[in-house]
Amino acid sequence: MGPGPSNPYPEVIEAFTRPVMGHLDGEFLGLLDETCDRLRAVFRTGNALTFPVSGTGSAGMEAAFVNVISDGDTVVVGVNGVFGERMCDVAGRCGANVVRVDAEWGTPLDPQRILDAHPDPAVIAVVHAETSTGVRNDLAELGSAKGDALLLADCVTSLGGIDVRVDDWGVDIAYSGTQKCLGVPPGLAPISVSARAVERLHCRPSSWYFDMGMIANYVSGAGARAYHHTAPISMIYALHAGLGVVLDEGLEAAHARHRVCGETLQAGLEARGFTLLAPAGARLPQLTSVRVPEWRLPTNTSEADIRRTLLDCYGIEIGGGLGALAGKCWRIGCMGHTARTRNVTLVLAALDEVLASD
Amino acid sequence: MGPGPSNPYPEVIEAFTRPVMGHLDGEFLGLLDETCDRLRAVFRTGNALTFPVSGTGSAGMEAAFVNVISDGDTVVVGVNGVFGERMCDVAGRCGANVVRVDAEWGTPLDPQRILDAHPDPAVIAVVHAETSTGVRNDLAELGSAKGDALLLADCVTSLGGIDVRVDDWGVDIAYSGTQKCLGVPPGLAPISVSARAVERLHCRPSSWYFDMGMIANYVSGAGARAYHHTAPISMIYALHAGLGVVLDEGLEAAHARHRVCGETLQAGLEARGFTLLAPAGARLPQLTSVRVPEWRLPTNTSEADIRRTLLDCYGIEIGGGLGALAGKCWRIGCMGHTARTRNVTLVLAALDEVLASD
Repeated sequence: MGPGPSNPYPEVIEAFTRPVMGHLDGEFLGLLDETCDRLRAVFRTGNALTFPVSGTGSAGMEAAFVNVISDGDTVVVGVNGVFGERMCDVAGRCGANVVRVDAEWGTPLDPQRILDAHPDPAVIAVVHAETSTGVRNDLAELGSAKGDALLLADCVTSLGGIDVRVDDWGVDIAYSGTQKCLGVPPGLAPISVSARAVERLHCRPSSWYFDMGMIANYVSGAGARAYHHTAPISMIYALHAGLGVVLDEGLEAAHARHRVCGETLQAGLEARGFTLLAPAGARLPQLTSVRVPEWRLPTNTSEADIRRTLLDCYGIEIGGGLGALAGKCWRIGCMGHTARTRNVTLVLAALDEVLASD
Repeated sequence: MGPGPSNPYPEVIEAFTRPVMGHLDGEFLGLLDETCDRLRAVFRTGNALTFPVSGTGSAGMEAAFVNVISDGDTVVVGVNGVFGERMCDVAGRCGANVVRVDAEWGTPLDPQRILDAHPDPAVIAVVHAETSTGVRNDLAELGSAKGDALLLADCVTSLGGIDVRVDDWGVDIAYSGTQKCLGVPPGLAPISVSARAVERLHCRPSSWYFDMGMIANYVSGAGARAYHHTAPISMIYALHAGLGVVLDEGLEAAHARHRVCGETLQAGLEARGFTLLAPAGARLPQLTSVRVPEWRLPTNTSEADIRRTLLDCYGIEIGGGLGALAGKCWRIGCMGHTARTRNVTLVLAALDEVLASD
């Protein structure tokens, strides 16, 4: 119940046991095509260039920036947590002129401030679900007013847990991770790229490994498949299976399951007098940041001790704060297969047992 | 029996079924430490910075170059196959002045020509085992005469199959893949970096994802672990298990098993009058390139048809030629769990059945 990796679906683990096929085997390519179709369904997009990047979520971030940024391009980045900060670092290394729009960690970004930050940016980049704070940032308003800019969105923690509408919202590059609400172990970064972003892809980006033009020649269903790098076969089996579980349940039903868990958890924490970091209306159901209830820490016990006891005695992992929130917050995830109300019941009861009485 | 991925060891598949732990969980970090120790054993190195890069073998190549090359640095690359070509592309994108030393595909590189190519290169880069041709290139001679240059070696197909002696040979950066002789599915790139290469790491390379300075703060056993990106947990379980199998068998015994398979296969092919691409003395046992025996192709049957029949009717994958060798060669692998003499017996007998009589 940390900020990810979540527990994988049983069907995902079973998929790992399939015989390893070659990356140019027709049967494997069929499974890869189906995986990309399933990704289009969860991203709610018709984007032809939709595939799993062969790395973790941060590889998705790097692939997103390195393929469209040229030296000196202006990139407006909304920053209200660790992953917005990371975007600035990644974009800067690509040679971008980074224009930051900061909001206090724990509060959502104001889309209008982002739109007003620069008259003609090449890219506007925002984290949809800030894993470091549990805050949801709005994408639709940015997409409708982005002008000539590309809208780049980090959907690592949102995809599969809350609505992500790549086409309706005008997101040009959306990337995610497998280890959050998709219920698959970490190792792949699903990504979807709009036709207008495809037109702006570098013909030779500084990264060979993440070169989307070359990768498209392998993952694209059209024509002969050109070998680029060896696909991570077993991880793709796992993603294929996880997406199958989500789509069999139904995307709306999966979102509803995450919502019920998050609301139940957040109500339970507030009923105990704890303070949630994110304001109502911008809270992620799948990831809840709560301020450490200092008054309920037993004598000579740190918040890290509490987390250790939860892990050692109850088998429950919850996350600590990142960056400026280290030592001040806990992050409790209900994602993927972990998003079950029984887990919410358990973590609240366990906290009551390990914390001092009110 | 293609050029990889090979069949994984059963213990590796079993490892995939372990519960997914968090990337900062102490139990997982212990397993990661043990994985790095096991990598040191197979690389035969004491290098502190030895870990699995979170991507496939080509990610290892990119991580190797991007962390040590600065704009305008001279990089001498030995090229006698696809992966030497790829090194030129990757190094060029890092801003290197690439000096190529070409040898005919199918023949080994001459170390002296590489050493003579430039008086003071920053990096000398060579593929130890060329997966596109089945040729072994010598590393020891380069390491002993490299001078101030760093020696960078692609050991994707060599590690676990033939001797790789990082410390004895003076290799400064060696990277590999999991899906060849280690008997693990593709998805990770083991890498080892010498102390003198660590001193030359960029403090801020153009790639965030492959930034070894930051990654070292996570994978290094010393002090607190700083989160960089979410480790691909299940793939690391798999690598840990695969390395366990190799080291339990014994590295020498594993090499001997690959050697026997390769020699048996190569003798069998030559006994049928087929021509091996690589000359005696530079042949990899784990990957054999053989010229397509045109005179034995049945009427109206292409070499691709033969490969398809082997796959469809016998469940045997063999590889076609890459690049200039497309349509002209087959590549037959005996790697990892696939390196069993029964498989050699089977592939030779199957070829006899599907090819026309002599």
